[in-house]
Amino acid sequence: MSTNFAPLKNDTFLRALLRQPTDYTPLWLMRQAGRYLPEYRATRAQAGSFMGLATNPDFATEVTLQPLERYKLDAAILFSDILTVPDAMGLGLSFAEGEGPRFARPLRDEQAVRALRAPDLGSLQYVFDAVTQIRKTLDGRVPLIGFSGSPWTLACYMVEGRGSDDFRTVKSMLYDRPDLMHHILQINAAAVAAYLNAQIDAGAQAVMIFDTWGGALADGVYQAFSLSYMRQVISQLKREHNGERIPCIVFTKGGGLWLDEIADSGADAVGLDWTVNLGKARAQVGHKVALQGNLDPNVLFAKPEQIHAEVERVLQSFGKPEAGSGHVFNLGHGISQFTPPESVSALVDAVHTLSRRMRS
Amino acid sequence: MSTNFAPLKNDTFLRALLRQPTDYTPLWLMRQAGRYLPEYRATRAQAGSFMGLATNPDFATEVTLQPLERYKLDAAILFSDILTVPDAMGLGLSFAEGEGPRFARPLRDEQAVRALRAPDLGSLQYVFDAVTQIRKTLDGRVPLIGFSGSPWTLACYMVEGRGSDDFRTVKSMLYDRPDLMHHILQINAAAVAAYLNAQIDAGAQAVMIFDTWGGALADGVYQAFSLSYMRQVISQLKREHNGERIPCIVFTKGGGLWLDEIADSGADAVGLDWTVNLGKARAQVGHKVALQGNLDPNVLFAKPEQIHAEVERVLQSFGKPEAGSGHVFNLGHGISQFTPPESVSALVDAVHTLSRRMRS
Repeated sequence: MSTNFAPLKNDTFLRALLRQPTDYTPLWLMRQAGRYLPEYRATRAQAGSFMGLATNPDFATEVTLQPLERYKLDAAILFSDILTVPDAMGLGLSFAEGEGPRFARPLRDEQAVRALRAPDLGSLQYVFDAVTQIRKTLDGRVPLIGFSGSPWTLACYMVEGRGSDDFRTVKSMLYDRPDLMHHILQINAAAVAAYLNAQIDAGAQAVMIFDTWGGALADGVYQAFSLSYMRQVISQLKREHNGERIPCIVFTKGGGLWLDEIADSGADAVGLDWTVNLGKARAQVGHKVALQGNLDPNVLFAKPEQIHAEVERVLQSFGKPEAGSGHVFNLGHGISQFTPPESVSALVDAVHTLSRRMRS
Repeated sequence: MSTNFAPLKNDTFLRALLRQPTDYTPLWLMRQAGRYLPEYRATRAQAGSFMGLATNPDFATEVTLQPLERYKLDAAILFSDILTVPDAMGLGLSFAEGEGPRFARPLRDEQAVRALRAPDLGSLQYVFDAVTQIRKTLDGRVPLIGFSGSPWTLACYMVEGRGSDDFRTVKSMLYDRPDLMHHILQINAAAVAAYLNAQIDAGAQAVMIFDTWGGALADGVYQAFSLSYMRQVISQLKREHNGERIPCIVFTKGGGLWLDEIADSGADAVGLDWTVNLGKARAQVGHKVALQGNLDPNVLFAKPEQIHAEVERVLQSFGKPEAGSGHVFNLGHGISQFTPPESVSALVDAVHTLSRRMRS
């Protein structure tokens, strides 16, 4: 099924992840297919809902490609949601208008936790179908990234039942019943590994693990309840498929203090948010991993000259790329729905122009 | 006015801040006078509103002392709000029930920014009266901490007009019109220094600067827009009053990556949140500053045995106190309103018992 894809025309992103020389610094944006684009809002209106978009491979393909029509981005990322996996576990995902995601059946007691099972991958076939269709439609233009939430980040939603600003419910369980939390994380880790491997089989050319809420954990607790399960996922990933190397990126938002340990997780690249000094981070990880990041998405509310200046600051903080190091430009978090689309043009242009100049 | 206070019976907290030997690790809790205490809720109901509490020195004294009646805490902290200063600048503070603070007149354009003036300290007399009355009522039991929000954290609320999860408005101004942002911060820094000095004159025995939102800034931007203005405040603080040394604590939540620079700010002690490894932090700062922190407040939702174990982990991470180092135990953020009051008993007992044992 995933054979017979067109050869890749722009492999800059994959090369940077594998710390091979590139002519310029490749970039893509977390949540690049999203509400800041009028064409996205139009397709979403047609689909009726967020899950209507995500579960229909035609719509998912359409919105995944929309930002590539506007901007010279160096990668596409599957349009989906990190909560498809717990949804397939039977927790009952819904998106209320104007609010975030919600689960109808969160894991609130021992009985619910003990009843949790890894999802039947068949119920996630719509995701793998979307991956294959997007890859075909891309026709080798840029690589396609598959993704999943981290075991801990999924657990946050599965226990809280929704977003949280203090993670009181999930952390209460973690501190009071660490055995139950480990039980959930064990199941999540197996599910995430299987889910990512199925995306790779379907055509994903790189995979990323989003640990959106790892940074909410205490030192020591992060290592035991988030990082160790990501390590477990990474160790089970297919690192090669049809003769091609499949790089893996791991991103713990707010995880800058744990960079040494994250760089030892087995991932090929580490995502960084804007609080991290890229130059220091590069010196710290050496030639172990590539780095991805790390512009504050709020820079995109400024004038083009300021965007240009901030991009330059990020590129110079990383410094001139050399053999053995790799930098993929990105935001330090998903792009805001309120971003003016023309700011993204200024961003893409600045990254490509300035990074070519730095190499010459 | 601030002379003739009773001599201090328990100076453990002040000694630890000044890195002098203590018999045990002193502790207090951010937001220790608050909604988790039924007696606080009763007084607040009497006062009618949060600002009704804060602006009445009798009520402020009553609630400040409530946690000390229950627990052997080693410091009291003035009951007030970080937004009293921008309120006194005329921005119109209110607290809507069930929501956070709001300003009626946020700083949204150049005209509003240029019209901003330092507050008349006379309009904050209720704060200084509360400080003096609390200090008198404490009768030397434990030291009294005064506090203020940091210039940047105040600016976040002043520009956003309320809490925010992405700081889009204030960061848009920061990136698009850094000149306006610096103008606000300059006025805030002068106001915060004057406000803290007036609290010291009124009887505060230590002061703390809460930089709640510094951790939302990008590397480089934090240094220029938050830390440099805190440094300016600290350089203007009275470090001695009536022959007594007044220590200063600075706390940037999420600022662990910038510890080296924060430790060079001129403060006597640095507050840390739970993402920081205390042992590493101690090695990093050497004998430059004391450290305050850093238990995850969510630990207080666990059983007493687990609270005990997590307290031990924090104390052992800091290690055995030696001459020249100082540790004040605290949470890494304000105590949750949902905390069972008996958990705080377990916490206080664990910190005092275990830390005495570590020293023997």
